[in-house]
Order: sequence, then C-alpha cells, then structure tokens
Amino acid sequence: MRAIFLAGGASRRMKPLTYDKNLIPFLGKPAIVYNLEVAKQGGIADFVVVVNEGNYQTFVNVLKDAKIKAEVVVQADGLKGQGGAVLAAKKYLNGPVLICNANDFFEASLYKEVLKKTKQKTDGILVGYKVKNYFPGGYLKLKDDQVLEIIEKPDPDKVPSEYVRIVMDYFKEGKNLANALEKTVKSDPDRWYEDAITKLIKEQKKFTCVKYDGIWEKLKYPWHILDVTNYFLNSSFLQDKVSRNAKISPQAIIDHSTGSVQIEDGVRIFSNAVVRGPVYVGKGTLIGNGALVRESLIGENSIIGYNTEIARSYIGNKCWFHTNYIGDSILDEDISFGSGAITANLRLDEGEITSVVKGKKVPTDRVKFGAVVGSGVRIGVNAMIMPGVKVGKGSFVGSGVVLDKDLEDNKFCYVKQSQVIVENKSEKVAQSREKFLKNLK
Amino acid sequence: MRAIFLAGGASRRMKPLTYDKNLIPFLGKPAIVYNLEVAKQGGIADFVVVVNEGNYQTFVNVLKDAKIKAEVVVQADGLKGQGGAVLAAKKYLNGPVLICNANDFFEASLYKEVLKKTKQKTDGILVGYKVKNYFPGGYLKLKDDQVLEIIEKPDPDKVPSEYVRIVMDYFKEGKNLANALEKTVKSDPDRWYEDAITKLIKEQKKFTCVKYDGIWEKLKYPWHILDVTNYFLNSSFLQDKVSRNAKISPQAIIDHSTGSVQIEDGVRIFSNAVVRGPVYVGKGTLIGNGALVRESLIGENSIIGYNTEIARSYIGNKCWFHTNYIGDSILDEDISFGSGAITANLRLDEGEITSVVKGKKVPTDRVKFGAVVGSGVRIGVNAMIMPGVKVGKGSFVGSGVVLDKDLEDNKFCYVKQSQVIVENKSEKVAQSREKFLKNLK
Amino acid sequence: MRAIFLAGGASRRMKPLTYDKNLIPFLGKPAIVYNLEVAKQGGIADFVVVVNEGNYQTFVNVLKDAKIKAEVVVQADGLKGQGGAVLAAKKYLNGPVLICNANDFFEASLYKEVLKKTKQKTDGILVGYKVKNYFPGGYLKLKDDQVLEIIEKPDPDKVPSEYVRIVMDYFKEGKNLANALEKTVKSDPDRWYEDAITKLIKEQKKFTCVKYDGIWEKLKYPWHILDVTNYFLNSSFLQDKVSRNAKISPQAIIDHSTGSVQIEDGVRIFSNAVVRGPVYVGKGTLIGNGALVRESLIGENSIIGYNTEIARSYIGNKCWFHTNYIGDSILDEDISFGSGAITANLRLDEGEITSVVKGKKVPTDRVKFGAVVGSGVRIGVNAMIMPGVKVGKGSFVGSGVVLDKDLEDNKFCYVKQSQVIVENKSEKVAQSREKFLKNLK
Repeated sequence: MRAIFLAGGASRRMKPLTYDKNLIPFLGKPAIVYNLEVAKQGGIADFVVVVNEGNYQTFVNVLKDAKIKAEVVVQADGLKGQGGAVLAAKKYLNGPVLICNANDFFEASLYKEVLKKTKQKTDGILVGYKVKNYFPGGYLKLKDDQVLEIIEKPDPDKVPSEYVRIVMDYFKEGKNLANALEKTVKSDPDRWYEDAITKLIKEQKKFTCVKYDGIWEKLKYPWHILDVTNYFLNSSFLQDKVSRNAKISPQAIIDHSTGSVQIEDGVRIFSNAVVRGPVYVGKGTLIGNGALVRESLIGENSIIGYNTEIARSYIGNKCWFHTNYIGDSILDEDISFGSGAITANLRLDEGEITSVVKGKKVPTDRVKFGAVVGSGVRIGVNAMIMPGVKVGKGSFVGSGVVLDKDLEDNKFCYVKQSQVIVENKSEKVAQSREKFLKNLK
Repeated sequence: MRAIFLAGGASRRMKPLTYDKNLIPFLGKPAIVYNLEVAKQGGIADFVVVVNEGNYQTFVNVLKDAKIKAEVVVQADGLKGQGGAVLAAKKYLNGPVLICNANDFFEASLYKEVLKKTKQKTDGILVGYKVKNYFPGGYLKLKDDQVLEIIEKPDPDKVPSEYVRIVMDYFKEGKNLANALEKTVKSDPDRWYEDAITKLIKEQKKFTCVKYDGIWEKLKYPWHILDVTNYFLNSSFLQDKVSRNAKISPQAIIDHSTGSVQIEDGVRIFSNAVVRGPVYVGKGTLIGNGALVRESLIGENSIIGYNTEIARSYIGNKCWFHTNYIGDSILDEDISFGSGAITANLRLDEGEITSVVKGKKVPTDRVKFGAVVGSGVRIGVNAMIMPGVKVGKGSFVGSGVVLDKDLEDNKFCYVKQSQVIVENKSEKVAQSREKFLKNLK
Repeated sequence: MRAIFLAGGASRRMKPLTYDKNLIPFLGKPAIVYNLEVAKQGGIADFVVVVNEGNYQTFVNVLKDAKIKAEVVVQADGLKGQGGAVLAAKKYLNGPVLICNANDFFEASLYKEVLKKTKQKTDGILVGYKVKNYFPGGYLKLKDDQVLEIIEKPDPDKVPSEYVRIVMDYFKEGKNLANALEKTVKSDPDRWYEDAITKLIKEQKKFTCVKYDGIWEKLKYPWHILDVTNYFLNSSFLQDKVSRNAKISPQAIIDHSTGSVQIEDGVRIFSNAVVRGPVYVGKGTLIGNGALVRESLIGENSIIGYNTEIARSYIGNKCWFHTNYIGDSILDEDISFGSGAITANLRLDEGEITSVVKGKKVPTDRVKFGAVVGSGVRIGVNAMIMPGVKVGKGSFVGSGVVLDKDLEDNKFCYVKQSQVIVENKSEKVAQSREKFLKNLK
C-alpha cells in the first residue's frame, strides 16, 4: 500500500514560530519522521511526501537521516490546498492509495484497521473520529458503515452522526481520485479535495467508514505543539534512559516515577536540580542548581539556569533561562529570558485563554497557556508575558514590561516608567537598622 | 465556677478577613476552643458563650465537635457592647460568675489565681496586667490589692499604677452585676460594662486585684493573628509529629530543632523543600520542590509551590503559591499568588508599619508586617503588595502592580503601563551572541 | 631597596563607593597589604607609603595590623598628582628608589626582574607592559632595551612599540628624581611626574626597560574591583579552608572542585545552599537555604538569604539579600535588597556596557556588568537595576522601579504607577476554581 503524506502547507498559523510544522523537532527528530514510522508500524511500506518548494531539500535530508525511503514531491505554486497537494503527486495516483495529513498524529492501529477494511469490497474508505462535543469539521453521514455524505460544519444541533472525518482516505483506484480532482478544479482550494471525494460518492462509488476513537493530535496552531509534546512525552518514543555522556550531579534528582526521562549526550545537571518525568533533554543542555523541569521537552544546547522552572513546555535549542518560570509555553530557538522574567500561564479569572491568529480571536481550549516566543527573542529581567501572548522573532521585551498583547517580529518594547526622585529624608537609616538587628536577637 | 465568655462582637476591625475572630482556625481548631480548654485546665467547669445571632449555629457545632459542654446564648441586636453581651446571659447571672473576653488568650495559671483569690473575703476580683510601657486601656487605681477605681485611658504621665485591667472579672453574686448593668443602661455601649463595675465599686463593694504578667494575646486587628499564631506555634498545643498518612520526600528537610513541626494527614512534601519549625501544616496541603516554610501556620489543601517561602505567616485553606515570598502576612482562604508575586514586609526605612482601619491610621507596633489578604483574591505575576496593605475579598491584583494602598472588596486593580514599541535596530543579535558564547569559553 | 608606594589619590572615580581604593578589603585584608606583601616576596624590604591627610591614621593602623613596617607620609594639599606624591616623600629620595602605584597589582616576579636589572649599568628602569590591543597610556619608544622616550597616548596607528609603561620606576639616585620634579613643578599635575622622567631622559640619563607580560590589575573605576576580586579569588591568597567555627549544614554543598572556598569564623550555611569556588565568605555571614554563591567575595556579617544567587560579585559587609540575583556587581556595605530585586548584568543586545563617570561615558570593556551600589542603600522588592547603573550611597530605590540611570547619593526614587481600579466583574471566581481543580485530577 502506498501512502501520500501531505506536508506542503505554509504553517502560517504557527507564527511567530518559524518552523515548518512538519519539521518541528520532538525528542530530537522532526515530527514527520514519527508519522511515517507509525504508518510503517501500521503496515504502510511505500511513501510519497508532498512538500512546498522551499522545503524540498530539507525534507529529502530529513528522510535520508531517518533512513526512511520515500519519494518527495514538490507542490507547485499553482496547485492550492490539499487538492493541489494530492494532484502534485498525480503520477503516484494509480492503484490503491492512502492520503494522509502529515501533521495529524494517530496510533499505528488505525492504519491496520484501514488496511484490514481494504480487503472488503469497497471503492474507498474514510475514517470517522468519534467526538463527544461539537467539533467544527466535516461530519460523516452514515448508513451502517457506509458513508452517504460529508457534511461540512453542520449546525451543532444537526450533526448527522458522532463521527467527524479525519484525513486518512483510502482510494481503491488512485486514478479515479485524480480524475475527480481535475473535474472539480474550480472549487475553493480549501474545499477542493473534499469536493472531489463528494463527487466520487455521488458517482455511486462505495465509501465505507472506519470508526476510530484513539489518539488524534494535530499541528495547526502553536498551542497544539503543547498537546503533541505531551503526546510524545507519554508515548513509547520517549526512552527512559540517561546517556553515559551526560554528567548528573549526585545531588540532582531525576524522578522516573512520574514518567520517562530521556537525557542525551553532553547534558549536565547540577546539584539540587529536579527533573520530573516525563521529560526529554536534548544534547549539550545544562540544567542548573535548583532548577525544576517537568513534563517538558528541552532542545539542544540550552541553559536552564539557577532556580528556573520549566513546566509542561516545549523549549527549542539554544534557549537561556535564569530564575524564570516558563509554564505551558512554546519557545523557538536562540532565546534568552532575563532573571525573574515570567510567562503567566493562567488568567486571574481562570477562564479560557484566546489567541489572535491572522487578526482573529481564536479559542485555544486551554485554561493554562503561557507564551509563544519566536527565535532570537530577548526578554528583560522581571518582565511578564501574559497568558497566550506571542512574541515575534527577533524582538526584545524590556525589563519590567507587562506584555499583554502580541508583539510583532523585530520590535523592541520597553516600559517608560514615571519615576519620582526626591531627597531621601528617611532619618537615621543606620540607627533604625541597628535597632532592627537588635530586635531580631 | 461558671464562666461567661463574650464572643458576640462583629469582628469589623478584622476586615478584609471574613472570619468571626473567635472562630479563626489555629492548628486545625477554632480559637474559642483553645480558650475554653485553657479555662478548663484552670479549673472552670461551667461555660456560657454569648454570640451574635448569625453565628449561633456555628458556635453550637464547633463546641459540639470539640466536645465542650457549654450553653450558647444569643446577644440580641438591641443589646450593645460588652454590657449587652453580659446582660444577654442574665439568666446565668446568679451566684459566683466569671466574665471573660472570648478573644483574649491567657495562661491557665491565671484562672487558678483568680479561683484561689475567690476564697478570700471579696465581692469581686479584677485582673491587672503589668505593663512596662503606656497602654491605652483602663488602669487600676489600687490600695494594696484592693481596687479603688478604674481609670480609662489616663494621661500617660498620670497612670495610677502599672496595672491595666484585662477582662477576666469575678463577681461573687452575678445578680449584683445584672442589677448594676440595668441601672447603667443609658451608658455609651463601649463603656456600659465598665460603668456597671464602677457603680458596684462606688456602692462599697470590695474588689480585689489579681496581678498578672504572663501571656496575654488578643484578637482585635488582623495583625494580632500573627501574634496569636506565634503564641500557638510556640505552645504545647502544637504537636511535634508527622502524620503516617503524609508523604514526605526523603530529600525534603523537616527541621524540628528550631521548633515543633506538626504535619497532618495527606500532606505531601517534595524534594528539597525545607520546613523549619515551629510549623503547622494542615490536611492535604502540598509543599513543592525547594519551598521554605518557617514559623508559620498553613491551612488545609493549600499548595506551597516551587521555590516559595512562607515566613512567620498565617495561611488559610486552599491558598496557592508559586515562587512567592510571603512574609509576616495573613491570608484568608481560596487565594492564588502568581509566580514572582511578593508581599513586602519591611519598609525601606525599616520604620513602624501603620494600617488604616475604619478610615483611621492605626499603629501596628510592627516593623515587619506583610499583607492581609481576603478570601477569593487572585494576585498576578510579579505583583508587589506593600507592607501592611490589605486586599479586599474577591479582588484581583494585576501582574506587576505595586499595591501601596488598601484595595476594597471585589475590585480589579491593574497597571496601565506606558510602553514604547519601536523597530529593533539592534544589529546582528545572533552574532553578538556567538561572540558572547565564545567569550564564555 | 626602598619602594615608595603612592596611595594619596582621592578615589573620586570610584563613586558611589566610599572606599579609599587602596583600602578596599579583599579576602579580609585591605588591598594595600597584598601589594606590599607581593613586593616583599619580590625582594623589597624598605617601604614608604604616601597617603592623603584624611587617611593617615587608617593607613598607620592597617599596616600595623598587617605587621608591615613602613613609613607613612602625608601628601599635603599643595602637592598634586603623582609628582606631588613623590615629592611629599622627598626625604626618602636618596640612593636607589622604586616608585610604585599602590593600586596596581603585579606578580612578585616583576619586582625580582627589576631588582635583577638594577645590577646592570643604568640610571633608571621603566617597566613596559606588553599589550595586544591599543591602550590609551604612555608607550615606550625603545632601542633594544633602552628607553628613548615616553609617548603619551599616541595615535593607535603610530605606537612606537607594543609596550606601555606601568608605574614601577627605578631610579639609581632618588635625588636626581627630586631635582627633576622640582624643576618641572609648573607641569600639569596629571603629567608632572612623567615630565620629570622625560627631563631625566633628555639629560642623557640612561633608562632601561624591563618587559613584562604577567598579571596587571588596577583599581581606577568601580568595575575594576570585579577584575581584582577575580584576581584574588584565583590567587594563592585565597585559602581552601573552612573555619572550625563555621556551621555548615550537612545538606549544603561546598564545591571546591571549581576553585578554592575560604569560609571564615562564625559563618552559617543552611541546607541546599551551594557555594561553588572560588569563593570567599567573611566572618559571621549567613548563607540561607537554596542560595547559590559562585566566583564571589562576600564580606562580614552579611545575609545571603533564601534562594539568592551571587555570581562573580564583590559584596561588602552587612549586606542583606532575599531571593535576589546579584551578578557582576559591586556592593559597598550596609545594603538591603528586597525580595525579587535584580541586578541585570547583560544588555538585551549583549553589547558592551558603558558607565558615566564625572559626567562622561566611559567604556567598561565588559559585556557582563551589574550594579555598583553605595553604602546604606535600600532596594525595594522586584526592583530592577539596569546593567552598569550606579546607586548613590544612602539612597532608596522603590519596589518595582526599573532603574536605568545612575542615582545620586541620598535620593529616594520610586515609581508612580498608573493604576486602574474597577469593579471586578469576573463571574463566579470560586466556581471557575472548582472547575479548574476538577480538571487537574
């Protein structure tokens, strides 16, 4: 079975992060690698990855490094959306084919289920993900396990089933899909691919449904990185092992009881530091005295300085901290936090945190959410980043700033304090201190 | 001997705390319970407690829970002040009776002294507390051990003795007291009770004096809770024991050498936390990594998070901290402090801290005094509460606020920062960092 | 050989520090003592120290305490600069004499080299220090090892050699020097002494050069104290020993592997504190729970409170800290930092830090540089002192202040926050918390 993974999107919703979302490193490897490995475990042997032009070589290298045999195909500029991505791989659209979204994460069992179902008589298979609450996606109208229709974002009180479609679509004959795509080429790029499937259904092709209620993680908005990090930290991908080339103080505490702890080469952990699993610490990173790292992924060559807490966060490479609290936050690389700078990760009213993406307020479905920080950012001492705020790459945030709005790329935001300077008329400071010291005895 | 404890006051001076001051929990039990237990140890067997209407059932339950047999009497609205409180218990005013203030704390020995003195020929006994410095109360004019007069707030240079009266008044015949109260009913409620005693003295009743210089703690203003906490922490009421159902990390440090440490059921203490006695930790409370708790009382189900210091403070139930310094402070329940928020507890000039109560500046007689925080309060990250400042219940204090005045109930105080946002013209940040890293080697 | 040490300067560039720079204590002894001891090791036996009038008795006492035999001479007001200082010691200017700057630190080997060279036929010896980069001082024009001329601050592209003169000048006959000084008395005081040497060279006296590339530390600006501290911490003057009268918790960590640790009498170090050498801790100082002290010199009777980090700093006596970060900073004595106050020690752009001295911006040649704090200063909670900023003695810095300019002596600088206080309309805080707590399970 051949699987075509769509990885050509521009990751614009990930701003200020500059990662291609399929290449975000987790536990030392790019996201796409895990996806292909899981698919392999699920029985897929033949891979095509559709990417955008700018990333072609990176993907080729990444797959080579990971020893995954895959064809890499460029989605040309003229071909938009998922429909365009699939059509870019037209030459691979013959015989049975599985279309997958590169930035959705499922269990290997799902691939197995789909493969098993292909043995039944069917022209295609769609996967329905069982939801408890309303989800703004494409719902499957079903009759037994046959898909009658895909209904995009129905009214919450008119959902045709409790199954929303996830992009793992099997077509018995890829040529039919190519054909349908070409006939629907005038569709809105955002719906083109779905339109082609709908066309096939209307042409009396039989689509059956595989129902699924296992793991489904996705990477669309920055905060999804926290969910995916959490997924990886609690997966078997995280190894419970400390490199022989790491240097751990005997007075440091590595707590494996709450989750696995994977510590790579060259890591140094100083006395009184606490690492509470699940945690991944990349090569060459230093964890200083008294620091606490828990439920987090730390990249390479970062410095988690004295008395810094990193909780439930994704930290990139070359990030430096010093007496900070970083909670539920996502940091790109080459970032410094001055001593005492804090990412607030909870509203005072403990309500849901929203985020502005492309000018629109987006609910994050998170009560705890810290900052999203672009690469090259410098944060001053005792600065405060409010929950969900995004700091553009290359920007500086001055000491003592309460940053309560997103900051664009390459800005310098500093506080202009109204200060009063007067003669210090306080009498006999020294005496009061003497008295005070005496009282202490 | 029957003792009537007056506990009907409205605790208005305790704002923003919402406790009835007689019911403030210390070491897991309400204050009144200790008072009655001490009186029992001192030889008192028969208790009447006068309360206000709103608290009647609570007092009944509290005394039942504590297995203390006592009559609970309601002080009706029309009966004001201590005079009213005593008269509310009129039916118990026959035969010998002792009138006590429920929110004053003495040693058991004082009760014994008074009981002993009742065996001498006398119509009543008043207790004189020996003061070194002037105290704005009622001074006793004495001839040997006979009380000639109570002089309210005399000029500091005209004090008739070094003894001020404390409310532990014995009357050989309660009916005489009731009678005197009824005859002085037109007095100012604040002085009515004293007027009645004065009337009895003028009627040639003989009042003798028991002189006392032992422990006297009182609960009138919020900061008195710090003194009473200190009293309990250094008393035999604090047990030096760790519950079997507590979970203490082997890398946590419980230091009993400086005072007793009582740790209740379900408490969890993480590695590198330090608990330095005397300390009381209530049920279900968690003390996080690297936290320091010393000379403090912590309520139930609170979270003393990572690297938080609690020093010489009273902390209620369900309070959450995260990298805070809480010193010499009183916190009601259900309170959160954001990471880096601090209670300043010392003026820069190290002078005495004052507090505004009912619109008037009141000296606190304290050089170290932090915050008084009402229930339901949320404090933002890196916020600063200035010495002696009170935060009203249900209020929010925003991140970075320097709160230098009392905040009323149910307010939201946030800082409006003047920020400047300009293009970041800093050249080649990455390069400067490379250089910097190189220099470090 | 007699050496005349010039120690009469007014140390005005050291503001706001009030030390005479020659008397700054390092490792428990004044700087001058080390200088004389090194000179002794280098073979010098006879000392004259020229001081200003105000310090005469202090120097006498210091030298007596250190058991160093030396004549102390006062530089009268009329005699300016180094020339005046030398002439103040006129009666000692006969026979061979070595003129040294009291606040320059060299290796003993240099004295030995100079003494060795005196055995050759020469009228005087000047020392040339080999520089890699341009240095704004007096360059030596040499022919072989003979000094032809001293060229003051030449154009960087016209330096006559790679040797700049340091003040360790040997004269075979002191009378000649006295004579030359008297003849050049009308010179600019800043150049008088050099003019006299130049006069001698012009008079065909032969001056030879000793070339030197060993240690040279100087005390001119406050930040030089950091270099000199570093020099002492890495010298054999620092002993690797813990006083028997110090009280070190078994759970404290003293790390001698990175440098010597000298801990004096009466020092107390609490559990989980980390002292990472090289470090000097003066008498009676307390290092609290979780504190980290590294590469620093701490004076006497200071309190390094809970979770405070002191890195690469010079801390005087009676300084109090509480959850602070003090990096690359110089603190005089009797100073308090409120909890959370921080000395920022790195610009956001990681560029060189400058300092304003006597109204002029002076480069410090430092990328990491914290604060310079005068005696008697009090810093409020969460205050931030920007890199290189100087706080005048006796001044107060309010809570939350971002101090980005030098503050004069005896000022009170506080922040005037724009605060908004509104009704807190957040709904059902308690409920949201309940929900939140439930979600946590």
